[in-house]
This record gives sequence, structure tokens and C-alpha cells, in this order.
Amino acid sequence: MTQQKLDQFKTLLKEQASYGEAIGLMGWDMRTKAPKKGMGHRAEVLGVLSQKVHEIQTSDEMKSCIDELKGKVEDPVMKRALEEAEETYEKTAKIPVDEYREYVTLQSQAESMWEEAKDNDDFDSFRPYLEKLVEYNRKFADYWGYENHRYDALLHNFEPGVTVEVLDQVFPKVREALTSLLDKIKNAPKQPDPSVLEGHFPKDKQEQFSAEILKRMGYDFQAGRLDETVHPFAIGLNTNDVRVTTKYDETDFRTAIFGTIHEGGHALYEQNIDENLSFTPLADGTSMGIHESQSLFWENFIARTEAFWQTHYELFKSYAPDSFKDLPLDDFYRAINEVKPSFIRIEADELTYCLHIMVRYELEKALIGGEIEVKDLPRLWNEKMKDYLGVEPETNREGVLQDIHWSGGAFGYFPSYALGYMYAAQFSKKMQESMAVESHIQNGDFQPIKEWLTEHVHQYGKMKKPLEIVNDVTGEGLNPDYIVDYLTEKYQKIYQF
Amino acid sequence: MTQQKLDQFKTLLKEQASYGEAIGLMGWDMRTKAPKKGMGHRAEVLGVLSQKVHEIQTSDEMKSCIDELKGKVEDPVMKRALEEAEETYEKTAKIPVDEYREYVTLQSQAESMWEEAKDNDDFDSFRPYLEKLVEYNRKFADYWGYENHRYDALLHNFEPGVTVEVLDQVFPKVREALTSLLDKIKNAPKQPDPSVLEGHFPKDKQEQFSAEILKRMGYDFQAGRLDETVHPFAIGLNTNDVRVTTKYDETDFRTAIFGTIHEGGHALYEQNIDENLSFTPLADGTSMGIHESQSLFWENFIARTEAFWQTHYELFKSYAPDSFKDLPLDDFYRAINEVKPSFIRIEADELTYCLHIMVRYELEKALIGGEIEVKDLPRLWNEKMKDYLGVEPETNREGVLQDIHWSGGAFGYFPSYALGYMYAAQFSKKMQESMAVESHIQNGDFQPIKEWLTEHVHQYGKMKKPLEIVNDVTGEGLNPDYIVDYLTEKYQKIYQF
Repeated sequence: MTQQKLDQFKTLLKEQASYGEAIGLMGWDMRTKAPKKGMGHRAEVLGVLSQKVHEIQTSDEMKSCIDELKGKVEDPVMKRALEEAEETYEKTAKIPVDEYREYVTLQSQAESMWEEAKDNDDFDSFRPYLEKLVEYNRKFADYWGYENHRYDALLHNFEPGVTVEVLDQVFPKVREALTSLLDKIKNAPKQPDPSVLEGHFPKDKQEQFSAEILKRMGYDFQAGRLDETVHPFAIGLNTNDVRVTTKYDETDFRTAIFGTIHEGGHALYEQNIDENLSFTPLADGTSMGIHESQSLFWENFIARTEAFWQTHYELFKSYAPDSFKDLPLDDFYRAINEVKPSFIRIEADELTYCLHIMVRYELEKALIGGEIEVKDLPRLWNEKMKDYLGVEPETNREGVLQDIHWSGGAFGYFPSYALGYMYAAQFSKKMQESMAVESHIQNGDFQPIKEWLTEHVHQYGKMKKPLEIVNDVTGEGLNPDYIVDYLTEKYQKIYQF
Repeated sequence: MTQQKLDQFKTLLKEQASYGEAIGLMGWDMRTKAPKKGMGHRAEVLGVLSQKVHEIQTSDEMKSCIDELKGKVEDPVMKRALEEAEETYEKTAKIPVDEYREYVTLQSQAESMWEEAKDNDDFDSFRPYLEKLVEYNRKFADYWGYENHRYDALLHNFEPGVTVEVLDQVFPKVREALTSLLDKIKNAPKQPDPSVLEGHFPKDKQEQFSAEILKRMGYDFQAGRLDETVHPFAIGLNTNDVRVTTKYDETDFRTAIFGTIHEGGHALYEQNIDENLSFTPLADGTSMGIHESQSLFWENFIARTEAFWQTHYELFKSYAPDSFKDLPLDDFYRAINEVKPSFIRIEADELTYCLHIMVRYELEKALIGGEIEVKDLPRLWNEKMKDYLGVEPETNREGVLQDIHWSGGAFGYFPSYALGYMYAAQFSKKMQESMAVESHIQNGDFQPIKEWLTEHVHQYGKMKKPLEIVNDVTGEGLNPDYIVDYLTEKYQKIYQF
């Protein structure tokens, strides 16, 4: 009886994963290849398939599998899959069907309203939508339940185990350290000169160099590919088909090259998840934060280091325009690590990035908690930007309207980006204790690094929760000291303060 | 009540079409973009989604929609969709579930066995599989039923309305005319010289020229795209997303250029199906034969004409290698229309092509009818090749093993190719009666031609049956005289006999 039920459960998971792969491919296609006139039809098809996934997750069959199998399954993969399925079932079951349907409609309306509002720098036209989204999210959080802070219920969707209590211990420490570092950097006598990076860098050359670096990182092109898009992403259709996308700016190679390496880090994670997790919901990154730790690790802890460029600068120059021929390595290295407060999160350097996140975290926590309202956002946004980054945007387009996340109802997502930095620094430190990371980078030998990440992080997929991984790998919980130490040491050298 | 049932029916059709689009995209992706390591997983996903389509088509819900709505639906689209759904339901219901499942497994085994057998020129290793496939097809034909010839039941799957009775009237006439034409061509004093077409033609130039011609044909690149593949095809995911694929041979431009135009003809059909048929099984070509008539029309009746090259030869030369610079148009035109009996169907010219089909038709008709057995095929194949084409392959690889169709159980498919030629000739004649086709071609003005085809053929999708279209457009049934007249007139001029 149990075996029969287990087979039924596996069949449901396989269907769910199959729809997932189809949905993933359709999304990849829409963002890289699909002709624009077919988009409307495709969106409807996506709607049908997403509905099917939702139906499986909340079906009576799924419920009976959960009820009958709970506590009776030995196989660790199926046991975790069952927990995951139960959590999804419970989470969805707690929301009244009508409210969920209204919310899905609101999401798509709000996203297109946000796009327009951003274009027109018109917060007020978006405000009523954002107010409704906040209202729904407050309600959903109440349905789901929480122990201390209502925002915890939303955080859980992106970073299970991380709560307001944790973040309120960690984030202020990081914020204070970064603002003080930023002060020193601003006043440092020797500033990098980013103008040395200028010059027309043809797209095909950028592509060739990016692909070459991906290969060296250990990204498997027989289980993936590299394409062009507008908003770069990586997507795992299955562990043997994990695709990277990038965009090319012929006037600034940094977009493509660091962008490709960043997405390559995400892709390495998904390519190296244990194949035994295939056709289960566990064949995926365990959280947004751990996923981001992998992309940031490769982008910053590898590809923005001096050691990396000591080996790869000659290779880079073989693809780069002639203007780089006589540029000294040190000038290049300092230029690609320039720190400069700016308005836009996605253009921020690795030091100010976390400060952008702090602004968002504090605002959305207060918003969901009911301490502030949507109408207060533009003013508070600008105040916090001034406090933490020392710059104040003159338009909402460059301020509170810049990110897509809230328009899709994604509250609780932003902290994952900062957590990604912290996890990456913490993993990096641990890795250094067990091998000569810098000399591997200098030798262009990334194999041991990739293997370390696979062994400690990638292979598990969702078998381990994010903080479980952090604890298992580093022997302690989330610790903000590592990111602070890393940034302090690095930028002291670069800015010589 | 009926309205509610109709809504349920529409929902089922929309789900079916949505799975269809996902399956189509996955197929396109596997043949153009997907990394090879992901193929195994993808095949499983395809299996799950195909199973879902089959489940919908044969579901109790579908049955109840058919039963309750039959005769009560006014809307012509829904009426036809209902007929189509009923036919699919009945067809599937007549086959015992176990036999169908065994057959699906056999199909995939047989396809890979065929590939191996072809590589090794080893008919005997494929023979037991082919025998089983024939046996199943005989049984299925008996389940489905037929009036005169068992093979009719299979023909119906590809070309509804066309029977052995029809083909046995038409095909011999065509065959006799073609073999007699072929004799005259062989003995004609002035043979074309295909060696004038040789020369290294870079892939990117071929691609640019092919895309330019597609555009001129009226293929909408905002509702499609052109990619490279191994076995070219066109695929309509929806009427606003119809993709063409091609392959490039740098030593022979004809592969890509005539291939792209051929697939472009298929694509124009699907791009111009009435959008009101979206999300129904009617948003598709009405039969294999009518589909082929559209591709062959553009490939031969447009792109292999003297009129076409009078206008496009200069354009062609602007992309072609220098060796074409001094090649006279007439030599070029005669070379691209060389007639030469050969072993391989897919490499055949437009005159001998139908003879390849006659060989296959006669063999599969006799095979399904039980007059011959699989073991007789190699001998009979070679005998017929000698009779009709005057050439006899020395290996089965170049003979009976060359085509994939039988290995997938597709008996009754081949006649569609020859029907495509006949339909195309019949449409072409009719088109000439209503407009100055040749001068449109000479002016490079394909708009009226495309519009004629849309008005008479494309827009209907599956709303009309193939012979209904032929009758409505030409005022008569299938008539082989047109293809014979067309080929006679054309090749008399070229070969001057």
C-alpha cells in the first residue's frame, strides 16, 4: 500500500517537474529567441501550464500522499520531497482560492502599471496597486503565521530560517562597517581611474572571452549554452541543461564579462546538483541567498581579485581593443574595483551594494509590519539613501520605482542579495582554510574550487536548508564579520587608507 | 447547460493546444539549441506531456462534451473542432490500451534499430521490428475499419478522403507520363551542366540570401525566426510563432536556399491560418499533402522558375562567390533544374521525386494489404527502382533502409508527398487563370501570390478537408493532368526535346 502511494507521489512529482521544465524553457525562449508577435499566445500557454502545477501541488491526490506517507518513508530524498510538498500544500491551502486568484490578476496588472509608472517617473499612478499588493502580503503573512514579526512569514519564502531577529542583529553591524569604510574610501588620496576601461569592445570578442572564462570555471557547455538577452539570468531546466544569458555593452565590457561570470556561478550550482534529485522539487537551489552566494563568489571572490587578473589579463588583452595594450595591470585592477555610491542597485559596486539592500529591507519590514504606509515610501527611500550612501535621487525612477520586485508582490526577497554576500564571504574564508585558493586562482586552476563548492553546497540542491548548509560548511551560523573583514582588507589595499 | 459544456470543451481544447505548444517548442529546441547532455531528461519530459495530451483526447470529460454537444453547436469553428475531437476520440478508443502502449514502446525501439541498421547496411537486424510494426498497423487498420482496402484506413490519417481507389487512378497516369518524360530527357542532346554551380559559398552569405528571400515571400520575421539544424523543418507553435530551420552546405548552396524556401512555404501556411482557430486542433495544416503543396509551390513553381531568376539572379550574385560573376543566367537556370535519376528520395529533383513515391506507395499498399511480406521488400524495392527510375541501388542503405518513416510506423504517409506536387500544380494553374503570376514573379511582387494562397488555402487551417479545398479552389477533384502538363512544358524547354 505504502509502495503504491509512494509511486503515486513520485508520478505527481515527475509531472510537476515536467511542467516546470516546459515552463522554464518557454521562459528562456521568450527572453532570448521567441518572436515578439507570439508573446501574447505564449503568455496564455504559460498560464495554463502554471495552473496545472498549482493544481498538482494542491490536489487531493497530493494531500493523500502526504497524509499516508508522512513518517513512513525511509529514503532520505523522498522524505525531504515529502516535507517540501507538504509545506507547499499547507502554504497554498491557507490562502482562500478567491483571494489567490485576485492576487494573481493584481500581480500582472501591477507589473505593467509599474513599468509605465517608472517610465513616466510617476509614483502616484503605481501607488494604489502597491497598496493592494502590500495589503495582500500582510494578509497572506497572517494566514501563514509567524512567531515574532509578520515579515518573517514572507522572508521564509525566500530564505527559510532567516528572520527579522537574525537580520536585525546582522544587518546593522554590516551597515555601520560599510558606511565607515565608504567614508575612508571617499577621502582616500589615491582614487582609481575608471576612464582607463573605456574603448569600443566588439560584442563577438566579449562573447568569446566570456565563453572562455565560463569554460575555465568548469561550466559544461555540453549541458548548457550562452545566449544574449535584455535582463541576464541563468536557468536550470534540468541538471544537464542549465543555460546562461548575458548582455553586451560595446562601450563597457564589464557588463558582459562580470555578468556572465555571475550567471555562470548560478549555473555551476544547478549543473552540479545530485542527479538523484531529478524529477523532484529538490533539484533546485536551496534558497535565493545561497544561490546568490554562488554567483557572487565567482563574480567577486574570484573574478575581481588581483590573483585572477594576474593570470587572465594577458588572455583578456588578446580579445580586448588595442587601448588596453599598454594599460598596467594595477590600473586595470583598481578601475574594475572602483567604489562609488550611486542610485541604482543593479549598477552598484560590491561594497555599496549591501547598503542598497539595507534601504529596501528596512522599508519593506516596516511596510509589512504596518509601521509605515506606501505613501511614505518615496520620502523614506530618499532619506535612507542619503543616510547610508550619501546620495539622494532626484526622481522616483532612480529611487523607489527602480526595482521590479515589489510590483510582482515579492516582499522578503531583497535581503537574500545581502545574505548572498555574507554567505559567500563566509564560504570563501572556510575554503581558504582548506586549500590554497589564491594560488589556484593564480594558476587558473578552478577545478578544486568548483569541486569544493559542489561537495559543500551544490550537490545537495534543496536537501539541506540554507542555514543548515552554512552551519555544516563553516561550523557556525550566519556571521557578518567575514564580509566586513573581506571588504576592509580588499579596499584598504586598493584605496590605501 | 450546453453553454457550460461548451466552456468545458473549450477548456479541454485550450489545455491540449497549450501542451501542444510546449511539446512543439521542446522539439524545436532539441533540434536547434538544446545541449546534448540534457536530451535524455528532455525525452522523459516530452513523454509526460504527450501522455497528458493523450489523456485529454481520450478522457471521460472529452467523451461527455462530444456526446452532449454533438448536433447542438451553431458556431462553425466549434462544430468542426467537435468533429475533430470525436474522430480522435473514436480512433484512439478503438485500440486496446495495452496494444497502444506496446506499440509506442516498439516505435521508439524500432527507430533506434533502424538508425543502426541503416548505418550498418543491415536490413535483417531491422526486419523483425519492421515486421511487428506492419503487423500492428494491419491490426490498427482493421480496428479503425475501411470500405475497400485496408490501406485506406492508414491513408486517412495523413490525407483524409484519399483512398487506394483514388491513388490507383491517378498515380499510374503520372508514373507513365514521368517515365516517358524521363526517357526523352535522358536522350536529349543538350544536357545542363551542374558543375557550374560549384564553388565555396560561405554559410553567412547563404543565410543572408535565404532570409532575404523569406522576407520577400512575405514570411513575417516578427512572427518567426530562421535557425540551423540537421534535418530541416518548419514548425508552427502558434500562428504568431512559426519557425523555419535550414542547413548549410558550403559546397552546394542549393541545400540551404531551396530548402529554406521550401520550409518557408510550410511556414507561410501556418502564419496565415485564421487566428480565430487558435487554441483548437484546427489551427494546423489540413493534411500532409496540402501542407506539402505549399512548400513545393514556393520551392518549384516560384523559386525554380526562369521568371524568378530573371529578377533575383543579380541579388543572388551579390551574395554568391565570384565564380558566379560571369555565369550566364540560362546556364544557371538549367543547372538548378537538372533531372537525374538517383537512389535517394530527399535528394531527388522535382521530376523523379514522384517516381520515388510510387515505389514506396506500391510496396506499402501491398504490405498492409498482406500481398507481400517484409522479407520481400529489399528485392521488390530494387526491382521497382529499376523499372521506374532506371537505377538500382547496390546497398539497402541507399535503398529500402533510406527513410525514417516506416521505422516510426508511419505507413500511408508517403503518398502525401506526391499529392503535394499534384495539388501544387493544380493550384498553380488556377492561380494563373486569375492573375498574371509570371509577371508578379518577374517583378518580385509576391504579395498577391501570398494573398491568393491565404485566401484559398491558408486561412482555413483544418476547417476544410484537403479534397474540399481542392474542389473549392479548382472546381474539380484531384487531377493528375496538371502536374504532367507542367513538368512536360517546363522540361521540354530546358532539355529541348
